[in-house]
Amino acid sequence: MSEEQAPTVAADRLERFVADALRHYDVPEEDANIVAGLMVEADLLGHETHGVFRLRQYLARLRDGGCNPKARVAVVAERPATAVIDGDDGLGHLAMRAACRLAMEKATACGIGWVGVRSGNHAGPAALYVRPQAQAGMIGMAAAVGSANHVPPFGGTDLLLGTNPIAIAAPTGGADPFVLDMATTVAAMGKIKTLAQRGKAMPEGWMVGRDGKPLTDSSRREEGFMLPIGGPKGFGLSVAIGLLAGVLNQAAFGSDVIDFTSESQRSSNTGQFVAAIDIAAFGPLDTFTASVDKAFSEMRASEPLPGHARVRLPGEGKAALMAERRAKGIALHASLRKDLDDIAREIGVAPL
Amino acid sequence: MSEEQAPTVAADRLERFVADALRHYDVPEEDANIVAGLMVEADLLGHETHGVFRLRQYLARLRDGGCNPKARVAVVAERPATAVIDGDDGLGHLAMRAACRLAMEKATACGIGWVGVRSGNHAGPAALYVRPQAQAGMIGMAAAVGSANHVPPFGGTDLLLGTNPIAIAAPTGGADPFVLDMATTVAAMGKIKTLAQRGKAMPEGWMVGRDGKPLTDSSRREEGFMLPIGGPKGFGLSVAIGLLAGVLNQAAFGSDVIDFTSESQRSSNTGQFVAAIDIAAFGPLDTFTASVDKAFSEMRASEPLPGHARVRLPGEGKAALMAERRAKGIALHASLRKDLDDIAREIGVAPL
Repeated sequence: MSEEQAPTVAADRLERFVADALRHYDVPEEDANIVAGLMVEADLLGHETHGVFRLRQYLARLRDGGCNPKARVAVVAERPATAVIDGDDGLGHLAMRAACRLAMEKATACGIGWVGVRSGNHAGPAALYVRPQAQAGMIGMAAAVGSANHVPPFGGTDLLLGTNPIAIAAPTGGADPFVLDMATTVAAMGKIKTLAQRGKAMPEGWMVGRDGKPLTDSSRREEGFMLPIGGPKGFGLSVAIGLLAGVLNQAAFGSDVIDFTSESQRSSNTGQFVAAIDIAAFGPLDTFTASVDKAFSEMRASEPLPGHARVRLPGEGKAALMAERRAKGIALHASLRKDLDDIAREIGVAPL
Repeated sequence: MSEEQAPTVAADRLERFVADALRHYDVPEEDANIVAGLMVEADLLGHETHGVFRLRQYLARLRDGGCNPKARVAVVAERPATAVIDGDDGLGHLAMRAACRLAMEKATACGIGWVGVRSGNHAGPAALYVRPQAQAGMIGMAAAVGSANHVPPFGGTDLLLGTNPIAIAAPTGGADPFVLDMATTVAAMGKIKTLAQRGKAMPEGWMVGRDGKPLTDSSRREEGFMLPIGGPKGFGLSVAIGLLAGVLNQAAFGSDVIDFTSESQRSSNTGQFVAAIDIAAFGPLDTFTASVDKAFSEMRASEPLPGHARVRLPGEGKAALMAERRAKGIALHASLRKDLDDIAREIGVAPL
């Protein structure tokens, strides 16, 4: 990939830059550091569409009032194994990080913890909020009402659903936990935007136009509909995530969802949840990881179908990727690098 | 549909027949009645591929030792919000019904309850174990490791995964709860078998052959691979369900899964889970149902894409269907009716 030949930026340098930019918009230092750390972690893990790429959108919402820089994240409802966190319209990473920690505490006490979030914001890839569970011998789950409606109900034409991603992680015996992080649409909007930014077309099957015909021009994405995986199944799954992450927490769902990429002034009331299941409540952790490794080894050993590379499990290779990027720096695509340089000039922080 | 013109059988008559057949194989009366009730409920709800249609398979396993007629379902691990139930290799409905009830009890106490099952068996449609939650003001979730491996890992050729279904239900303000019950494959094996039984072909996209080309002959299903929804996404989701429903509960996953339709002598060690989330732990139930109704009304009002009927939500129409079938009886397809008559003759119970 061309970006691998681009000049790299050290992760800690990038983190400082992001934190500086957030502090410029009155985010307190501690919160700015937390969010910058998670945003750069997304890039280290290869979630480029959900990492530092999003900085301009976050800053616009901080500047214009859609996102509250001085948010106070608070638990507003609680039972032994559940809670609701109000993100106070702050940067989404803060509420989701708190939800992840609380879910893990509750899982330790009760076997499972499930924490909903309301008045949140875009929080980067859901993977960030399930990997800590896997590292602690737990199964992690997280999902969100997508931060813009790009998808109609199956067979309809009104944009009432987002890509509604879900992430699930579990420990293995190896360096890489199992980490699934998927949109319920065939493609994620972040991927489509990255293609558009690079002037590339989409494959057929990602979107359809209002005429029901395939739409492949990524710059015309606003004219079409994203398609759910498996047709009515992906639609149903997306609605279920909307109920669990949105409605259950009194967060936005359906026509109440604003497009956070174009709306910088209004609260998004983004809904999310994070869950943790303590594997030890079900049986020994090493029995679990041994069974996972056995099953995954069988899958990896399966002879590939003609035209396919060997079988890969979700999350595979992330530890090595992260180590490499920590050691050699993160390669930023030229368009993103330019965007960050522009931001530095616009707000007067030290450029990368 | 042709089966709607077929002679009907009253639900309670069908239930008695199924219970008689189960009792013939030494299932105690109370258990036989519970299982028969759930099997007929599946047919009342339109899950014909997972209802009485399965009776012959269940009886073969009871007869040959794969399924234990005198199973004692027991809780073998427990935390405040979680448990593991051992189904003692009995009829799968018994362990799943117990898991559903226990999950709801725990949800009332802790906000959420999550109960895993091991040493279970095929238990009919997962929908049966999430509808009670919705009726009680809870969100229900259930999933299972599919009872036969028909699916390779994405890009591979060894059959190491089942259709691994997941069901999610939630209350609405209307007669029909939201009930999603989906296989993680494009099609469910039950649907393919029903087509085969009726001599019909599959649409393209359900299965591929070993050559990677579409397979549409339903009678040749054993020669091909079922396809996951969304390619690697459906694969990842299926693996995640395998970990949650199988590995977590020390139940079978991967190559340990036997084909329960052809293996009648061995324990299947089927893994499943049932969860319940008490909506009141997150906010008022009527706020939840009002928001659901608003979102669903918007979706139903969406103008259909050319060639589509109006938008339907998962679970829609089930209450009316159930009422109609309770009133007018259940129409059994001729091939199923013949199968049940054959069973009656074979084991000497009163025919329908």
